[in-house]
Amino acid sequence: MEVLFVGDIVGRPGRTAFQRLVPEWRRDRGLDLVIANAENAAGGRGPGPSIADALFEAGADVLTLGDHAWDDREMIAHIASERRILRPANMPPGAPGRGDLRIDTPSGPVTVLSLIGRTFMGPNDCPFRAADDALKEARAPARVRIVDFHAEATSEKIAMGRYLDGRAAAVCGTHTHVQTSDERVLPGGTACITDVGMTGPRNSVLGREIEPVLEKFITHVPQRFGVAKGEAVLEAVRITIDQATGRAEAIERIREIVS
Amino acid sequence: MEVLFVGDIVGRPGRTAFQRLVPEWRRDRGLDLVIANAENAAGGRGPGPSIADALFEAGADVLTLGDHAWDDREMIAHIASERRILRPANMPPGAPGRGDLRIDTPSGPVTVLSLIGRTFMGPNDCPFRAADDALKEARAPARVRIVDFHAEATSEKIAMGRYLDGRAAAVCGTHTHVQTSDERVLPGGTACITDVGMTGPRNSVLGREIEPVLEKFITHVPQRFGVAKGEAVLEAVRITIDQATGRAEAIERIREIVS
Amino acid sequence: MEVLFVGDIVGRPGRTAFQRLVPEWRRDRGLDLVIANAENAAGGRGPGPSIADALFEAGADVLTLGDHAWDDREMIAHIASERRILRPANMPPGAPGRGDLRIDTPSGPVTVLSLIGRTFMGPNDCPFRAADDALKEARAPARVRIVDFHAEATSEKIAMGRYLDGRAAAVCGTHTHVQTSDERVLPGGTACITDVGMTGPRNSVLGREIEPVLEKFITHVPQRFGVAKGEAVLEAVRITIDQATGRAEAIERIREIVS
Amino acid sequence: MEVLFVGDIVGRPGRTAFQRLVPEWRRDRGLDLVIANAENAAGGRGPGPSIADALFEAGADVLTLGDHAWDDREMIAHIASERRILRPANMPPGAPGRGDLRIDTPSGPVTVLSLIGRTFMGPNDCPFRAADDALKEARAPARVRIVDFHAEATSEKIAMGRYLDGRAAAVCGTHTHVQTSDERVLPGGTACITDVGMTGPRNSVLGREIEPVLEKFITHVPQRFGVAKGEAVLEAVRITIDQATGRAEAIERIREIVS
Ligand SMILES: [Fe+2]
Ligand SMILES: [Fe+2]
Ligand SMILES: [Fe+2]
Ligand SMILES: [Fe+2]
Ligand SMILES: [Fe+2]
Ligand SMILES: [Fe+2]
Ligand SMILES: [Fe+2]
Ligand SMILES: [Fe+2]
Repeated sequence: MEVLFVGDIVGRPGRTAFQRLVPEWRRDRGLDLVIANAENAAGGRGPGPSIADALFEAGADVLTLGDHAWDDREMIAHIASERRILRPANMPPGAPGRGDLRIDTPSGPVTVLSLIGRTFMGPNDCPFRAADDALKEARAPARVRIVDFHAEATSEKIAMGRYLDGRAAAVCGTHTHVQTSDERVLPGGTACITDVGMTGPRNSVLGREIEPVLEKFITHVPQRFGVAKGEAVLEAVRITIDQATGRAEAIERIREIVS
Repeated sequence: MEVLFVGDIVGRPGRTAFQRLVPEWRRDRGLDLVIANAENAAGGRGPGPSIADALFEAGADVLTLGDHAWDDREMIAHIASERRILRPANMPPGAPGRGDLRIDTPSGPVTVLSLIGRTFMGPNDCPFRAADDALKEARAPARVRIVDFHAEATSEKIAMGRYLDGRAAAVCGTHTHVQTSDERVLPGGTACITDVGMTGPRNSVLGREIEPVLEKFITHVPQRFGVAKGEAVLEAVRITIDQATGRAEAIERIREIVS
Repeated sequence: MEVLFVGDIVGRPGRTAFQRLVPEWRRDRGLDLVIANAENAAGGRGPGPSIADALFEAGADVLTLGDHAWDDREMIAHIASERRILRPANMPPGAPGRGDLRIDTPSGPVTVLSLIGRTFMGPNDCPFRAADDALKEARAPARVRIVDFHAEATSEKIAMGRYLDGRAAAVCGTHTHVQTSDERVLPGGTACITDVGMTGPRNSVLGREIEPVLEKFITHVPQRFGVAKGEAVLEAVRITIDQATGRAEAIERIREIVS
Repeated sequence: MEVLFVGDIVGRPGRTAFQRLVPEWRRDRGLDLVIANAENAAGGRGPGPSIADALFEAGADVLTLGDHAWDDREMIAHIASERRILRPANMPPGAPGRGDLRIDTPSGPVTVLSLIGRTFMGPNDCPFRAADDALKEARAPARVRIVDFHAEATSEKIAMGRYLDGRAAAVCGTHTHVQTSDERVLPGGTACITDVGMTGPRNSVLGREIEPVLEKFITHVPQRFGVAKGEAVLEAVRITIDQATGRAEAIERIREIVS
């Protein structure tokens, strides 16, 4: 089974890169499943229904969110009926939507799970225990399980990979918008990367215009952080999984520039 | 000019990897300058004088520190007389030691500058203004300037690279212990990478044993975080600089496993 | 029913103040129950078994802890067998000890519950949902329920008081070591105070010697924060409760200086 | 000299309480100077010019701001020309406005200084060194100096009081919206209180409606935090200062409910 996991899509440049590259890849590269983190897909903020739909049309099977899940208030209602959009499973019980999904692919069923970290982030329920719950046999009978761990701290992300080694085919970090180079299949068969990276404008600070970000760091006066312009980059990983065992065979980093 | 910048050295495994690889590289690869972040070189904690000396003997020209600068109390006194050890320049004026150094290399003088970030870290003076101060002509007449930006947040690290583009040959991020894949020479001639990575035990969480870290994340009961055992990795970047202009020509990631 | 709730006891000066005042008050003031936060009772750090015992002997019925619960490693084992010491109930399930207690007093049974906040503090389970669990009829049949909410942020502490109004006789904030002046019985019958204050050396910064704390704020160089000397203060609240209804009738601040 | 220092004014209820009480107090109570923290005066957010003017008309001589200084973008320009509005002096040099003011009162000149803390708050320059700068003889020749220290952590606020003891007549904490009961004149003659409290709706969480705050704490779904309704409270301190020496003689807490 071939899975493409796409890093945080930022604004129109990110969506455009996704729309340009993914349909062709779906056709030519034998992808069984495309998961994309969409928490910044709307002008750098969390998406509403129509932007999510545009990404589904371009080839996403599942969209994950993160700390920006509710930036667009329409999403709060929309997520109840759109099971292909996941918010972190370890948000509190009162949060709308759900954090995991069983989806059928040409090579068999897959469970996708979204989790959010707590170190240097807002409070949420324990992501480790939430993973235990979501991945236990009864709830996730699909052998192949893929986790988006949306987190800031490298320690927490690496710990999650180790914690789930042997229980998930992949633990893909998101949120920092910078692709790390530590992709690797752990001994138990779990493919890990601390951060998949970003899909958005390349000459930017995490997708935002450089100047206002610098101004903010230096003067602390609030700025409007517009999405940057110019060439975009799509960052992702491709994971090859043995669907019979649910173990990853390979993880490969992808970075494609679209001008 | 060829510069090797080595990511956070963690404990004995990290020191051993450094000692095994760097002397040979100095001899065979035409390195003019070796800078290493040593903030975790002593059992995962900040080093004292003797461990620092061992790294100098193995080929380091300059050692940088970070938030673990004063883990070993002897360093507080030692740093006053050892100018080759830098603590972040934007620590407060009352802090011992200094944050920049002019050093002569076979290919000419270089200014090395250590800075620390503030996002998700303790309070310190503004690293951007500290960079302005340290890099202004009068204080840093060397054309080649290399910056260690020890910081957590990708936004702050990328912003610093952009802020210093054209004023430094390189801005190398440290602290997260995970090497990023975004190395790049910016338009003004500054080589940047969000994080150089770690030099230490590979099967670990940031150099520490996996089990106690997991136990801590799950139960919150304090654990002893020992340095992990087994094969070590040295992560670094090699930067090629035109000493006539102080502009970087290339930056290349290095990851070498030592078993 | 008369309940005395004593703010964070700090070091020997705090213990001495407690030992000097509380036995007499128990005798003369008709106290049914004495609860004290003991998280800093040992040299400013969390107590071990013998220091806890000294406080029980001096008249405490229940001791609560907080973020310093495991400073003394012996407490990790001891708390399993000492049900009168509570750690926050919203620590993760894997944590030793327990967070609530049913205790008999001369005026009837009381449930005491310890909770810890999350704003500006480490991650823990949701204190609001933990309160729901612990206070539901089945688990806490005692009509009188008293909560120690060990938290930093005024918003979270006031919110908890409002959340539990009508379900607890008192929600007493601890942790900041500064007594607030907002004690009050809310409309539902819950006595609240944002922080009960500290029992420890008065000329200090939260019980610690002033000079090293200033030095740390100014230079950021680590200091030894000794417990301060000189006159001590005991800060507490006295809560009068109608045991028939479990509603508070009054809450009164106490500050007594012991030289 | 008699100084009234009023805690964070929140929204219309807070402004109304101020307008009802302060003009009369100015007339009847011999006040020489009225300072008020206005950082939440506009619907709970930082004020613009017209709301600031309304408070000046009602009797404020100086308004201080805090972390909400730039909530209203008009303030960014306005503060350049309105010297009676202070933003924290330890904001970075590029920030608009200024952090201290020399003002003449019927009993002589006073220097007012605004500072902001760093513990559990955004990054800023060191407030201790900023105080040194602002209060040195050359810049603050007025004998009477009054400091608003807008900070979260009790440790940082108490440390500032001790640091400035003998150099300021008063160090008044603001920001937490809960009045503490630790008002006191330190040995060097500096009147201190950890937090002056809030001027705004009493049945609220820090001035905001209770229900949405609870909803946010429990579900983490963003809510609109409207200013609460109902009776308001004005919290303040009155400081009596010997203008010949610049030492405080007394500090008295004030809480007045306006229905
Ligand atoms: Fe993102
Ligand atoms: Fe995010
Ligand atoms: Fe570090
Ligand atoms: Fe490090
Ligand atoms: Fe505490
Ligand atoms: Fe405490
Ligand atoms: Fe504030
Ligand atoms: Fe405020």
